[in-house]
Amino acid sequence: MLVSGGVDSAVCLALAKSQGLEPHALTFNYQQRHHVELEAARRVSDALGAVHHLILDLPLRKIGGSALTADLDVPKNVPLGEIESRIPVTYVPARNTIFLSFALGWAEVLECGDIFIGVNALDYSGYPDCRPQFIEAFERMANLATKMAVEGAARIEIHTPLIRLTKAQIILKGVALGIDFGITHSCYDPDARGAACGACDSCILRRKGFLEAGIPDPTVYAR
Amino acid sequence: MLVSGGVDSAVCLALAKSQGLEPHALTFNYQQRHHVELEAARRVSDALGAVHHLILDLPLRKIGGSALTADLDVPKNVPLGEIESRIPVTYVPARNTIFLSFALGWAEVLECGDIFIGVNALDYSGYPDCRPQFIEAFERMANLATKMAVEGAARIEIHTPLIRLTKAQIILKGVALGIDFGITHSCYDPDARGAACGACDSCILRRKGFLEAGIPDPTVYAR
Repeated sequence: MLVSGGVDSAVCLALAKSQGLEPHALTFNYQQRHHVELEAARRVSDALGAVHHLILDLPLRKIGGSALTADLDVPKNVPLGEIESRIPVTYVPARNTIFLSFALGWAEVLECGDIFIGVNALDYSGYPDCRPQFIEAFERMANLATKMAVEGAARIEIHTPLIRLTKAQIILKGVALGIDFGITHSCYDPDARGAACGACDSCILRRKGFLEAGIPDPTVYAR
Repeated sequence: MLVSGGVDSAVCLALAKSQGLEPHALTFNYQQRHHVELEAARRVSDALGAVHHLILDLPLRKIGGSALTADLDVPKNVPLGEIESRIPVTYVPARNTIFLSFALGWAEVLECGDIFIGVNALDYSGYPDCRPQFIEAFERMANLATKMAVEGAARIEIHTPLIRLTKAQIILKGVALGIDFGITHSCYDPDARGAACGACDSCILRRKGFLEAGIPDPTVYAR
């Protein structure tokens, strides 16, 4: 299970745990601007019962091409309609393809065909690699790529339990599962103390979700 | 273009160069047992005219599951019929999926839709991620995964010019292109001085290819 330390992956982890699964959590230190999320990923994995938490270092700044992995400004206070209608500069080239590829390799070593990712195609930033058609194509490819699938030991399934939920629905599900969202982190551009900026797309979508859910957001925003 | 420093990627690079392309070479230090191949990848990229050579560090020993990335013995002197009929312990879980994912991200930053990989589905080790059906599924997925493809800037194409050639045909093509194969490296289990073992599957397939081509193999074998 991919765990970033944000709202979606926390709910995804708690959901899997509530179904009696034994989730292995995978997090990437991809030289992201908001590397403070690694601490959140550790807290989430511990608090919500991952049986193992693996953090892998990936040199994505050598590739760059995103405000999260290169010296580009993170857009602030973008109107909601615009967030949902274009692919922004915080898009990281091939990120979910890269992340799922490592998950696929690890799954094969664990002899487990079930990969979970908390992507969400409603209240999201328009990233192409969060959409159902991408996930389906990845799953199809994975079943041709691996010894496990080709030899028939296990079919690979990419589970996306949140993909058709709004952020508010995801938050309400998390509350029902007993998650303290104070341990999660969403901001792309936190200040030196780790406080959320409140104005990047990720903060805006998080704030909107908590507002719509009628749940107080425990995040400390810098403004 | 993925460049490992072996025969196939050298020919693939020379072929692209001969067609007037400007190849960007991508190599992975994935903590492979035969990391000596990184030197070969540098020599190949330099000698055959890559316009840029990027080496990325990947922590694949944290995942393991292969004789190339974990403490498992590399099989020696396996009969040819057997090499071609089963997936061996040198298979690295999801390796080509991981490698192509990084190539996809880099291609997007370079604003280039053409990715080359020197896979070969005839004289090979039975790895599932070298087969045409895997490559086609990856290409389809890539065109749903990326901003470049979704916004219509470029269609992504995974080029595999060697996929239906025998190792002997690949070597003859390389000779015609003027490649000195002395700069390449194939062995999975070289000795401390970097000399090829002569007995792993990769050495056996290389030796067979040179024999069938009627070309002297410049490799120094330990035995």
